[in-house]
Amino acid sequence: MKRRLLLVSNSTLHGGGYLDHCQQQIKDFFGKQVTRILFIPYALHDRDAYTRMARDKLKTLGGGNTFRLLKNLYDNNLVTEIRTRVLQDGVPYMGSSAGSNVATVSINTTNDMPIVCPPTFSAIGLVPFNINPHYLDPDPHSRHMGETREQRIMQYHEEPETPCVLGLREGSMLLVEGHKATLLGSTQARLFQRGKTTTEYAPGSDLSFLLTDAH
Amino acid sequence: MKRRLLLVSNSTLHGGGYLDHCQQQIKDFFGKQVTRILFIPYALHDRDAYTRMARDKLKTLGGGNTFRLLKNLYDNNLVTEIRTRVLQDGVPYMGSSAGSNVATVSINTTNDMPIVCPPTFSAIGLVPFNINPHYLDPDPHSRHMGETREQRIMQYHEEPETPCVLGLREGSMLLVEGHKATLLGSTQARLFQRGKTTTEYAPGSDLSFLLTDAH
Repeated sequence: MKRRLLLVSNSTLHGGGYLDHCQQQIKDFFGKQVTRILFIPYALHDRDAYTRMARDKLKTLGGGNTFRLLKNLYDNNLVTEIRTRVLQDGVPYMGSSAGSNVATVSINTTNDMPIVCPPTFSAIGLVPFNINPHYLDPDPHSRHMGETREQRIMQYHEEPETPCVLGLREGSMLLVEGHKATLLGSTQARLFQRGKTTTEYAPGSDLSFLLTDAH
Repeated sequence: MKRRLLLVSNSTLHGGGYLDHCQQQIKDFFGKQVTRILFIPYALHDRDAYTRMARDKLKTLGGGNTFRLLKNLYDNNLVTEIRTRVLQDGVPYMGSSAGSNVATVSINTTNDMPIVCPPTFSAIGLVPFNINPHYLDPDPHSRHMGETREQRIMQYHEEPETPCVLGLREGSMLLVEGHKATLLGSTQARLFQRGKTTTEYAPGSDLSFLLTDAH
């Protein structure tokens, strides 16, 4: 299993610039041997501007709208192609936000508005669990009556045979190398497992158990 | 056109009980001649508890998860059935939150997590526009970097031939009677039209122009 993934919660952290908060991890992840990066700008409408922004930073990412990204990946027959290149050939994959969502089992736990309809919510499946990027704790002072993020994920787990969901708060990211998964970044992550109590993990935690199919 | 609809933004308003904020409008809407109500509990997992709650209040609504609600409407072949009964036979329809979303052109502008995948995002189509319930203004003090509600709706309008979106803030609702639409409740609504500037409407506004197909 040559799999190497860097799945980031968010592209911009409050007070910083675009991808600033994960600059070091991106550098470490791609290393010196990577000289060309395939950037997939499908998640935003203006693809040229988005690509320029990414090129300007000499970095890749996959933020934007998850539904738009996944639909375009299917429309261009890229889902299986990417899976093969990453899992069999060891091409490193990095995504943030929408790009993290599409790397998992399905996009059922995105926060995005369903502005377009992909043929299925099943995604690239580079890992056997789901991610909720931009994970947000409830605001005790809010007067808004929409569901909290935790309530939404709990609703997902009312459905049968749903995989566990890793809530990546802004500032956190998951590094996957073969059968090893490590939580990186500056914030904790919250793990939701169907029928079990939720658990918090600190940066540096070994989350390799998420990569076995038992979850 | 016998259409009569009451489309509510939210089931509970901060500080009040379940459906308290629209109690009078519901009473006015159903009147004295309605003695039986069909309640559709598909949007929440525990349908019996949800139905009991609605029955206890002698009221109907449709809150919960929009994807789950629409999928179950299709699975039970109810979409066309409801459309016919409401548009041709004049059966009054009331929904709040998810129940308002499914009454419109499509669920593309729901805020919910896509926990299940309906066969299509096209909905019952009782009106020729979309609604964004629980519409939320940007919080200038927030440090969270997820898209604002306005940004999400703007992304929807980057897609071709998308209908206009009425952002119903919590506390507001739309009353539709035949070809007449009126904004009710205690808060303003925000209208998004593809390629035009957004507009605010105060409670009491006549929004009948939204019912013509030109929008």
